[in-house]
Amino acid sequence: MNMDLNSDIGESYGIYKIGADENLIPYLTSANIACGFHGGDPQVMQRTVRLCKTHGVGIGAHPGYPDVPGFGRRVIQLSESQVENIILYQLGALAAFTRAQAVPLRHVKPHGALYNYAAQDMPTARAIARAVACFDAKLILVGLANSRLIQAAMELGVPYAREGFIDRAYQSDGTLVARAAAGAVITSPARAARAAVRLACQGVARTIDGKTISLEVDTLCLHGDTPGAARIAAAARRALRAAGVTLQAMSA
Amino acid sequence: MNMDLNSDIGESYGIYKIGADENLIPYLTSANIACGFHGGDPQVMQRTVRLCKTHGVGIGAHPGYPDVPGFGRRVIQLSESQVENIILYQLGALAAFTRAQAVPLRHVKPHGALYNYAAQDMPTARAIARAVACFDAKLILVGLANSRLIQAAMELGVPYAREGFIDRAYQSDGTLVARAAAGAVITSPARAARAAVRLACQGVARTIDGKTISLEVDTLCLHGDTPGAARIAAAARRALRAAGVTLQAMSA
Amino acid sequence: MNMDLNSDIGESYGIYKIGADENLIPYLTSANIACGFHGGDPQVMQRTVRLCKTHGVGIGAHPGYPDVPGFGRRVIQLSESQVENIILYQLGALAAFTRAQAVPLRHVKPHGALYNYAAQDMPTARAIARAVACFDAKLILVGLANSRLIQAAMELGVPYAREGFIDRAYQSDGTLVARAAAGAVITSPARAARAAVRLACQGVARTIDGKTISLEVDTLCLHGDTPGAARIAAAARRALRAAGVTLQAMSA
Amino acid sequence: MNMDLNSDIGESYGIYKIGADENLIPYLTSANIACGFHGGDPQVMQRTVRLCKTHGVGIGAHPGYPDVPGFGRRVIQLSESQVENIILYQLGALAAFTRAQAVPLRHVKPHGALYNYAAQDMPTARAIARAVACFDAKLILVGLANSRLIQAAMELGVPYAREGFIDRAYQSDGTLVARAAAGAVITSPARAARAAVRLACQGVARTIDGKTISLEVDTLCLHGDTPGAARIAAAARRALRAAGVTLQAMSA
Repeated sequence: MNMDLNSDIGESYGIYKIGADENLIPYLTSANIACGFHGGDPQVMQRTVRLCKTHGVGIGAHPGYPDVPGFGRRVIQLSESQVENIILYQLGALAAFTRAQAVPLRHVKPHGALYNYAAQDMPTARAIARAVACFDAKLILVGLANSRLIQAAMELGVPYAREGFIDRAYQSDGTLVARAAAGAVITSPARAARAAVRLACQGVARTIDGKTISLEVDTLCLHGDTPGAARIAAAARRALRAAGVTLQAMSA
Repeated sequence: MNMDLNSDIGESYGIYKIGADENLIPYLTSANIACGFHGGDPQVMQRTVRLCKTHGVGIGAHPGYPDVPGFGRRVIQLSESQVENIILYQLGALAAFTRAQAVPLRHVKPHGALYNYAAQDMPTARAIARAVACFDAKLILVGLANSRLIQAAMELGVPYAREGFIDRAYQSDGTLVARAAAGAVITSPARAARAAVRLACQGVARTIDGKTISLEVDTLCLHGDTPGAARIAAAARRALRAAGVTLQAMSA
Repeated sequence: MNMDLNSDIGESYGIYKIGADENLIPYLTSANIACGFHGGDPQVMQRTVRLCKTHGVGIGAHPGYPDVPGFGRRVIQLSESQVENIILYQLGALAAFTRAQAVPLRHVKPHGALYNYAAQDMPTARAIARAVACFDAKLILVGLANSRLIQAAMELGVPYAREGFIDRAYQSDGTLVARAAAGAVITSPARAARAAVRLACQGVARTIDGKTISLEVDTLCLHGDTPGAARIAAAARRALRAAGVTLQAMSA
Repeated sequence: MNMDLNSDIGESYGIYKIGADENLIPYLTSANIACGFHGGDPQVMQRTVRLCKTHGVGIGAHPGYPDVPGFGRRVIQLSESQVENIILYQLGALAAFTRAQAVPLRHVKPHGALYNYAAQDMPTARAIARAVACFDAKLILVGLANSRLIQAAMELGVPYAREGFIDRAYQSDGTLVARAAAGAVITSPARAARAAVRLACQGVARTIDGKTISLEVDTLCLHGDTPGAARIAAAARRALRAAGVTLQAMSA
């Protein structure tokens, strides 16, 4: 059995640092690199692509709403055409760095509020899928498992990967518990590792109220800005391998 | 004899409009499209690429310093690596829109203070040329005739086009009179048309103090934000054709 | 009878111009000056305060969401504390220019999406009113007549002015027809002048579907970016004077 | 003998944190709070003013060039009028928060590239001093000892404080060694403490090449983003007290 382990990285901005990308990247099989709209800048993007290349990590774009002050965590009211165009812009910007360093751009995962909004709103989901399709028909669109974004990718024939989270609590309906809520973020490497194995091997997740829900996923995400992210990633890798899972970058 | 007529366009931003691109584009053979750093935004870029495609105008990127409030007209102190990366970022961003609309990206012309600084500063000129070369070896780099930027393109084997201005006054050393100085901007269509013919047919320009200097150019620029830009472009086209010049997009 | 005539001004940004403030200001009794968050910049603010001082026009702050690309016309999800603090920040910024030029700051009117959101959302309305009250207890808060913002001002004991629009169509419930809808914007000076007199003298407005609704207002607004805003303002002034109304800046 | 100990604080931005203000503030007698142009935002400003109020620390504004991506560390080419207006804007913005919390605004210290440029460039220095004077004639302008900024304050009759740095190396001419140079930043609390005592008690500083230069100062600065800033501040306080110096906020 194969599974991908991804994280959002390259979200530092100017002198402002966030996450510990150097420590985390070696444990990943895929990385979603911020494109300058919610975080990241050209300097950070160039360095982050290089780090991923060095460690053989699959590179994807992580486009967000244009909102550095809000870190892309607030919905910005955009028309479908605006969504399509901010995705195209950011895909192109990151692709310039992968092209310059001769590594492939493999996937796209929207960030923060855009990811969450596209999980529920079909017009936004379709606008993202259209942008991805017309930029590069082979790019894999990453979305929350069972979300509108995955549905839009299916409709438009866009390759996709269904995502599960190993360091975030789920609700019974398969959506994530809001980040600010108590218990939303899992910081124990052992607990995250168990969640990883459950998702990868059994196709299930534990909800915050103790139930088990079915959740088929193609890639596992952990958050780079969770304290101890590298330890969580290391623990998840060990547990997945022990369970017979081969870690490798997502494929369509 | 062939000559290219180019202008900087797509520099509107959000609700803020500048220039009259719809009127001007039909008269051009090449267009330099702003990439969102000094002007332009994803919405404007998508529409401007479409306009150029409709009118068969050659599309180029017009990257600038990251400075919308200053419209890219002030030097921002950047390292060579930062210059290289902001060029790559902007090239990629615009290329996403040409790719989505299946038109080629043909050239690159830095904007404003970056254009002027690269005309004099070899490290900046080389950083730009490197970014262009590693993004796409066939892209034509447009620079002020006789400038460091053209010299850097030659050194690195980057295709280039030497630029002359038909609506700006020259100094004896071949540099432009500063925009704010009296007589710097030529708004008379007839005078600009004569300057165009002199540059295209005789390889010379008149200076602000009435001399004639030699100036070999491959492309002629007129400013889209000069009042009556479309009338200037129309007059230049008529005069060039009457002088036996064929207007066509620049080639290396 | 007295009435105030106000408009939103000072919304240009860097080289990007909007509106025709020089022409419009002489016809106003109050002006709402953008504070740099949705439009305006320090240079524009300084010049706009000076213009208002020259023409004896009452000066108010026009704070908006932090969103130049969207011109403050999209709701940004902010906490109450964030709303309070962006209002304080912008009030202070504008007050520095009135202080430096020794003219009083008299009122505050939120801009665009913030104005509309505060008209319906009590927590946002209260956050704005709290910021105004703790900045200067004598400042007049301008809000849509019958809105939550006026209600919040009443609750907190903040001086207020109820606003009516002479160049925008109303719905039966007293809210404005969305700007993008057909018939939403009135560009005829004669029609706007009649609306002004109806609001000032009879306390009523015509709705888009031809009804008459009661609408008590303390100040009349016209939009500076409506084509021909200065002609609309001139026509409204003439009509109001002819109807016996004295034009003067709002008071609490 | 009295001496002031100041630091630049409140430079976090959105989710991006910098410095450890909570730890450092208790050791200061004056704090220079970023105003949103190079760092800081309305939320951070409100919280930082509150922290200073809680600890009885004198509050000053720390205005910078408008350049969050460059953290105000690059010169932006501004006219004198633009410098004056960005200072006014930022003074006003911060003053709104001190007014709302009923604490005085006592001083102004330009940030980064603006501080350094104003140390050498008389037009910029005068523009800053004019802005300070017309905002509040009692505000103290803080500048590098022996700099143009202090000279401009003297000329215009603006109260001033001459600043010395306890955690930065000096050159023989009394200017600071560039931050990126080897040995420019002093991270040893003991060394910084000795520098503090030398400046406060003897009016001298050691240069990077081992000389002693005369340097009369009214306030001592340490950088909040130096690793271990709070330990440096604590060591400096102890050493100053041991040397008989009373720590108190600057006065004109």
